[in-house]
Amino acid sequence: MQRYFPILTWSRSYDRDMLGQDLLAALIVTIMLIPQSLAYALLAGLPAEVGLYASIAPLILYAIFGTSRALAVGPVAVASLMTAAAIGKLTAQGTPEYYGAAVALAFLSGLMLLGMGVLRLGFMANFLSHPVISGFITASGLVIAAGQLPQLLGIKASGHNLHEILAEIWAHLGNISFATLALGLPALGFLYWSRGNLKGWLQKRGISGASATILSRAAPIAAITATTLATYLFNLSAAGVPIVGEVPTGLPVPTLPPLDLELWSQIAIPALLISVVGYVETISVAQTLAAKRRQRIDPDQELIALGACNIGSAVSGGFAVTGGFSRSVVNFDAGAQTPAAGAFTAVGMALATLFLTPMLFFLPKATLAATIIVAVLTLVDLGAIKRTFAYSRTDAAAMVATILVTLGVGVEQGILAGVALSLVLHLYRTSRPHVAIVGQVPGTEHFRNIDRHAVITAPGVLTIRVDESLYFPNARFLEDFIQDRVAEDPSVKDLILMFPAVNAVDSSALESLEAINHMLRDSGVTLHLSEVKGPVMDRFRRSPFLSELSGRIFLTQYDAMRALAPELTARTLSACRRDTQRAPEAS
Amino acid sequence: MQRYFPILTWSRSYDRDMLGQDLLAALIVTIMLIPQSLAYALLAGLPAEVGLYASIAPLILYAIFGTSRALAVGPVAVASLMTAAAIGKLTAQGTPEYYGAAVALAFLSGLMLLGMGVLRLGFMANFLSHPVISGFITASGLVIAAGQLPQLLGIKASGHNLHEILAEIWAHLGNISFATLALGLPALGFLYWSRGNLKGWLQKRGISGASATILSRAAPIAAITATTLATYLFNLSAAGVPIVGEVPTGLPVPTLPPLDLELWSQIAIPALLISVVGYVETISVAQTLAAKRRQRIDPDQELIALGACNIGSAVSGGFAVTGGFSRSVVNFDAGAQTPAAGAFTAVGMALATLFLTPMLFFLPKATLAATIIVAVLTLVDLGAIKRTFAYSRTDAAAMVATILVTLGVGVEQGILAGVALSLVLHLYRTSRPHVAIVGQVPGTEHFRNIDRHAVITAPGVLTIRVDESLYFPNARFLEDFIQDRVAEDPSVKDLILMFPAVNAVDSSALESLEAINHMLRDSGVTLHLSEVKGPVMDRFRRSPFLSELSGRIFLTQYDAMRALAPELTARTLSACRRDTQRAPEAS
Repeated sequence: MQRYFPILTWSRSYDRDMLGQDLLAALIVTIMLIPQSLAYALLAGLPAEVGLYASIAPLILYAIFGTSRALAVGPVAVASLMTAAAIGKLTAQGTPEYYGAAVALAFLSGLMLLGMGVLRLGFMANFLSHPVISGFITASGLVIAAGQLPQLLGIKASGHNLHEILAEIWAHLGNISFATLALGLPALGFLYWSRGNLKGWLQKRGISGASATILSRAAPIAAITATTLATYLFNLSAAGVPIVGEVPTGLPVPTLPPLDLELWSQIAIPALLISVVGYVETISVAQTLAAKRRQRIDPDQELIALGACNIGSAVSGGFAVTGGFSRSVVNFDAGAQTPAAGAFTAVGMALATLFLTPMLFFLPKATLAATIIVAVLTLVDLGAIKRTFAYSRTDAAAMVATILVTLGVGVEQGILAGVALSLVLHLYRTSRPHVAIVGQVPGTEHFRNIDRHAVITAPGVLTIRVDESLYFPNARFLEDFIQDRVAEDPSVKDLILMFPAVNAVDSSALESLEAINHMLRDSGVTLHLSEVKGPVMDRFRRSPFLSELSGRIFLTQYDAMRALAPELTARTLSACRRDTQRAPEAS
Repeated sequence: MQRYFPILTWSRSYDRDMLGQDLLAALIVTIMLIPQSLAYALLAGLPAEVGLYASIAPLILYAIFGTSRALAVGPVAVASLMTAAAIGKLTAQGTPEYYGAAVALAFLSGLMLLGMGVLRLGFMANFLSHPVISGFITASGLVIAAGQLPQLLGIKASGHNLHEILAEIWAHLGNISFATLALGLPALGFLYWSRGNLKGWLQKRGISGASATILSRAAPIAAITATTLATYLFNLSAAGVPIVGEVPTGLPVPTLPPLDLELWSQIAIPALLISVVGYVETISVAQTLAAKRRQRIDPDQELIALGACNIGSAVSGGFAVTGGFSRSVVNFDAGAQTPAAGAFTAVGMALATLFLTPMLFFLPKATLAATIIVAVLTLVDLGAIKRTFAYSRTDAAAMVATILVTLGVGVEQGILAGVALSLVLHLYRTSRPHVAIVGQVPGTEHFRNIDRHAVITAPGVLTIRVDESLYFPNARFLEDFIQDRVAEDPSVKDLILMFPAVNAVDSSALESLEAINHMLRDSGVTLHLSEVKGPVMDRFRRSPFLSELSGRIFLTQYDAMRALAPELTARTLSACRRDTQRAPEAS
């Protein structure tokens, strides 16, 4: 019960002290979340109020199901961009179909996350290697920032990749609205400056730490208030400044998303990609914050929580949500003690939905664009390319490919190309298991790589030590390796495969071992095994391999050599055993 | 030079004895290949003579570029089915566009194989696990056999999966041509019987071994001759027996396939699948046969050879070719010594194209269908499901999924589903690296799993031994594992990661190690490393990880314990060193 409802673990010891800290954190996060929710809804191509809806139910559900004490869920930049890219292919922005499809996308994504959580499929997130996710987020940040430039310039654009957006800006350069720019540019400058400097500036003017924190987080609210007032007072809307306009007041009405199977099949892949990308982000943030207080999170339960959040978002008229990095850090820094802080934030967002929306009529879209640009620039980490290149060129290649495809083609293609390339590179790297031809260390029962140690081998007996588990990606290599060794040395009569580090042998590798056995028998060579682990042996017993094996199975390699080359072991054992007191080397 | 032209290695020592054996093998293979080439061309939806064209140039090119002494290339059942499935989606059978697309498919497949060979990408074939390829071939055999039933019944059908074919047969049951059935059924029975029994029956009647072999291989020719004669004599074509009809005489005219980029992009995925499936088949056959004579084949050069064969097939008006299992075994058994046997077979096929085609006019298509059915039934291995299930249920699941999707949806979907499932299962199996918490074996410098051995641990020091290389599929597990251990034991002050078996650490795993380091620092735990291998250490030096590491790096685990828990090592070392003369255990 507590596994599926982590709220039961922390709510029993909840006290007044925690309540105070959670309320303060909720206030700060609410102030930060109102402009971001509006902005990310527009980024996703949705009406502004949808962003508010997506910031109520999910936060309450996360408080019930989530295992992180500080994670703040809600609309985030990357998932909003992915929503726009996925739904923009199907129908035009501003239509009820578009909104319905975005809700269905969140719902389907929630179902997938929930299903993966119940089936404990958290390992699926492993498909996304770090260079791929890092490159993808950098490229998404660049696409999002570029996509906001038209809003800042007061021109229309709807491209989903860098060159489409830049081409549209170029084509509409003559239509730039200088009134919009006159509002947006100062807002952008103020937000950019306040991000790093406002808190210190306030403290220098004698404002206490806590108040300075709250006030500095309110910078986007200040920018919104100032530009909205300016638009209202100078009637800038008539001068061509696009404004948010009528935003419905009141809480969303719970509904179910359209049950349209054709639509669902069209959004299945985007839903899966949003789910996985969102989950990877969520789990990274949650683990980072949990470690700071030596708490723990449960990756499979996080899938369930994130699934519940997305389903909750969808049925309350919202869109795809994820654990956000910057808002979680703000929540944590503000002292949030439990997920109740998130529930209090939800109350704040609900109050905003009830009472704040009339004031958003004259809010210029350019101000929200400025908010987004400043927020997503923290996602862009071009230095990661250089760091990754220094460490591993193949990983850097996967990262650069992901960035280029995301920028040049689109977000879905970018992440899919990255995943495909990661898998190919992984298969390439693991397609050669670590193997060594070994011989006996004189005077001991130890066997070591003949290339690195002075060891003794018996004529006609070849011993190959396999240092890794055998799976289909690396099984064929062993066949090729053995075939080459046996073809180049016609004197070989016995071949011993030494399996001290083989933890598993899958069906493909078993087939390879059977092929090796037949091949060696046809070549007049007997195949033996030594040092096979118990679980591997158990599996072999369930196949015809052992009965077809031309040779024997030895408990230790020394036993094998004593049986196959008795003259050798007798000779070397009579030597002094000086070597036995050394620790076994890593070889 | 010899690497790319293996003909240079064997042609110098070619002698009269080899010539005689190669000529005999070529005669037997030619007799077998004529009916099969015609039949597989029809299976691919192409005119019968295209099968003959595909059996000339490729055989000569393989003799130049191939490294197997006995492999026989040409049209095969599975590649023909895949061709029909790929081109059937684009255009109707019997049109010049269909033929052009099939030629382009072979050309593109050849380019891909050649490219993979030059770039030494043979490891890409590892994507196909054995259960997937085995299930795919079984299912293909069933689809092909079912697809020939309409031909045998004299009704029309064009389905590409089992239920489409069966539905078509059911719908046309009223149109069965009993004249066709009267020809086809006896042909089927004779061919099925002769496959296992004709050679022995002939030998019992006093015919010598070599002649009996040739005659038994001629059974399809006999069936073709008998049914063609019957059709001609009794004018069965007028009675509704479909016949091959006009087959152009003469060698094909070299041409280039249509340079139609849209077509090429439509057939790119089928071309890749045909390439990989064909390559995996080719390499398995070639390795099996090479082992019998202790020869070796070069997997990357085989890619080049197969690529050249397909390009050669395409420019000479043929379609996709592959190394065939049964014809290669026949070639080997008939005593083929060198790839020259293949070149002689090509001459035989060219003669057939020049002089035999007029005789094919009255050949009933039902006879060719019977030839195909008998040939592909050897591909069906339903027992493999049971054997695989006994060995590994997950592998059996991948096999059954591949079979079901291939039968129920189509060949391309079947192989893609199988590959995807194999990769998911592989990631799942490798998503948990083998790790153990270790302690010191009393009185030694050895460290062993605390769950399996009576070992000593120091309070506040936790040592985790990692037994596998760290890559993105398993990197996150280590983070979770360490977070859990540290969260459940607040006394831990030092954590040592022992890396004796870690051969590689990719960027994702490095990122995980950095995250572990930060997480532990935030939790007040110092992270140390011990027994890190040289190549891994070299890579670490190219990243900021070492400078950020909160603890130290120790050459051996014993050094680490001596530094972090000196009182422990002093105490245990004073004990008798009775344990040191044992060989190190596999643990």
